[in-house]
Amino acid sequence: MSTLDEALEAAASSGDAVHPGVRRARAWLSRAVEPGTVDLWRYVEDVGPVEAVRCLRSGAAPAGVRALVGTRVEQESSLADLRLAERCGARLVVPEDDEWPAYRLHALTLAAVDEPLDRRSQTDRTRALVPPTALWVRGAARLDEVVERSVGVVGSRAATAYGEHVAGELGHQLGQRGWTVVSGGAFGIDGAAHRGALAAGAPTVAVLSCGVDRPYPAGNSALFHRIAETGLLVSEWPPGCAPLRHRFLVRNRLIAALTRGTVVVEAAARSGAQATALRAQKLGRPVLVVPGPVTSALSVGCHELLRDEQLGARLVTSAAQVVEAVGSIGSDLAAPVERPASPRDGLSDLAIRVLDACPVRTGVAPERLAAVAGCEVLEVLRVLPALELAELVQWTGTGWRLAPRAGRPGAAP
Amino acid sequence: MSTLDEALEAAASSGDAVHPGVRRARAWLSRAVEPGTVDLWRYVEDVGPVEAVRCLRSGAAPAGVRALVGTRVEQESSLADLRLAERCGARLVVPEDDEWPAYRLHALTLAAVDEPLDRRSQTDRTRALVPPTALWVRGAARLDEVVERSVGVVGSRAATAYGEHVAGELGHQLGQRGWTVVSGGAFGIDGAAHRGALAAGAPTVAVLSCGVDRPYPAGNSALFHRIAETGLLVSEWPPGCAPLRHRFLVRNRLIAALTRGTVVVEAAARSGAQATALRAQKLGRPVLVVPGPVTSALSVGCHELLRDEQLGARLVTSAAQVVEAVGSIGSDLAAPVERPASPRDGLSDLAIRVLDACPVRTGVAPERLAAVAGCEVLEVLRVLPALELAELVQWTGTGWRLAPRAGRPGAAP
Repeated sequence: MSTLDEALEAAASSGDAVHPGVRRARAWLSRAVEPGTVDLWRYVEDVGPVEAVRCLRSGAAPAGVRALVGTRVEQESSLADLRLAERCGARLVVPEDDEWPAYRLHALTLAAVDEPLDRRSQTDRTRALVPPTALWVRGAARLDEVVERSVGVVGSRAATAYGEHVAGELGHQLGQRGWTVVSGGAFGIDGAAHRGALAAGAPTVAVLSCGVDRPYPAGNSALFHRIAETGLLVSEWPPGCAPLRHRFLVRNRLIAALTRGTVVVEAAARSGAQATALRAQKLGRPVLVVPGPVTSALSVGCHELLRDEQLGARLVTSAAQVVEAVGSIGSDLAAPVERPASPRDGLSDLAIRVLDACPVRTGVAPERLAAVAGCEVLEVLRVLPALELAELVQWTGTGWRLAPRAGRPGAAP
Repeated sequence: MSTLDEALEAAASSGDAVHPGVRRARAWLSRAVEPGTVDLWRYVEDVGPVEAVRCLRSGAAPAGVRALVGTRVEQESSLADLRLAERCGARLVVPEDDEWPAYRLHALTLAAVDEPLDRRSQTDRTRALVPPTALWVRGAARLDEVVERSVGVVGSRAATAYGEHVAGELGHQLGQRGWTVVSGGAFGIDGAAHRGALAAGAPTVAVLSCGVDRPYPAGNSALFHRIAETGLLVSEWPPGCAPLRHRFLVRNRLIAALTRGTVVVEAAARSGAQATALRAQKLGRPVLVVPGPVTSALSVGCHELLRDEQLGARLVTSAAQVVEAVGSIGSDLAAPVERPASPRDGLSDLAIRVLDACPVRTGVAPERLAAVAGCEVLEVLRVLPALELAELVQWTGTGWRLAPRAGRPGAAP
């Protein structure tokens, strides 16, 4: 086993983009600097991962970039991290790999390029849209393939039974339609969405804010195990990392970036799910929101998103509507909401007036119908046959009345 | 007591716009032709109500207009209708009266003028936006004043407990803010909205599709009685008229027209409330919609309205948001949804990272915090005092740890 310096040296002299030393370099970077740091990402883009690590460790990197690493520059556990990952069935996927979801992450690259050079004018790291420098993934699926047709489903951890039901149904139906559900693996909405997808036999992806070797929360460990069997656990943080609070916010941009759109199922005011929705919107991805009772605190965030005109979020009530919004134009259209057909459909105004003029019990003469409907007797005689054919009116032998079960007076449409 | 012909003659020769004969003429018209008929409205506008009735009765009116009256031309109960109204505390308000809500109804006039001349190209009568030729009103309020600051609240008759609760709250809070709730007096949402307004001591208006002397449904008769005490029962149909089904649709345009905006609380697919919302939109009035659980059939219509991008309906969750949408700009702004303040608000990225690096129990040295947070020790020492002041961290005597109840690791925001 080579030291990090030897591995970097070998990679540099080979010039091979997928040399093992490149993966070592990115493993080192993933522990040295918190994700979401645009200046570090820029530096790595500029000089390449191998040279970046060499310069950081030798002190030759610019002071601004060195400051980002701080005392972590002393740490070197890249090989140990890669081995820890391997031991739990995980691997480090790097931008140099075929498996890297470059197409999906391209929007992050565009956003990062737009960040100002002056650090004081840059977006806060927890909100900044910066590509990951590498992704630790654990599971059977290939990263780029599993996220190709994917939807983010996010929401509150303290979800209600309503929210969990809706998230589970959405996950299940998205899975049945061949869409991957991407979520955060948390309790509540996240877990329900993952479980729904798994129940449909579909792969699902949990994007974590901690090491993939000890996914948080531990209460979902059986779920994480099942996810890894067909889908993926994904994280920017190396094995062993704890789910520190600020990391959730940084993680959220990845759920938005890896998917074609984000669905918010239940969200309180000021929630992480809202934050994810805003990231999706900034990345040009549809923001879809499931409404709920206005009396529920856990739908307040959803309704705020829907009321925000600049955000342009779209209300959805079913997986079909989600797929319509994120799917390919023409191939994923939702069926319109089914409306009960009425035998009154297509009747002329005159026919409707005559119909409404018919009494429920005792039949009356056409003259009486004309008076009530406000038309000529001839007109009544003209429309009665059609009404009779449609089984809306009947002849009693002495007059016309409503057929049983036809529209009753007073039954407002 | 004069006959109709004598009254018309007197009105014609007096030339007085508010002559009793004018009211007689409009009373006769209100029974002779179903409301919503654009050609009748145009004819009355053209020749005036007195001349219109004379020509219709003498057969001198154009054939197209005579056909609208049909056999009802034989009926003459205008005086009896006015007396019936008087007996139940009602009166006929005509466009010639000061009390006529001309300002609010002007949008209907503009829409009616736009209707094609050719009857076959005209909008269906149940959907046509045509001003009323007169309004039967019963109650203590003055029509123009009570609808000046008013909101339509409409929804399903078969409402759920959720819908009735929300409608009642809305009605109550709109009433408290000095807004008149206009609805249809039906069971369910309508009744709940009226009752909420009454509970706030505010006048409310029920627009009926039957005579104001026998408001429908009879089960709401106590409610109608209370409405008439401070507000109004309003109808285009003369006393004694039954709530025929097609009349509900025709009536709906009046709720939309008399108000500054329409709120839909619960509506199934293909509902009358949706129809009212569409009328409001066509009249340029805001369409406001209360969402509900996506699992409820009685919110399907609401969600369809909110998904209709061309309609431009706005989601509302409170009376404040309704008033903001329909009220005067600047004077009726809703307070933003309250968000719980967090002591983490306003912390720098560095401070958040140091905070999250602090353990829950055993205090650690700044050097350790720097390693976990990924920064210099000096930076840690710079932010710790502020974190201590904010009671987020504490010094244990041997190191720094999280203060009790400060952000815990793993507690996603």
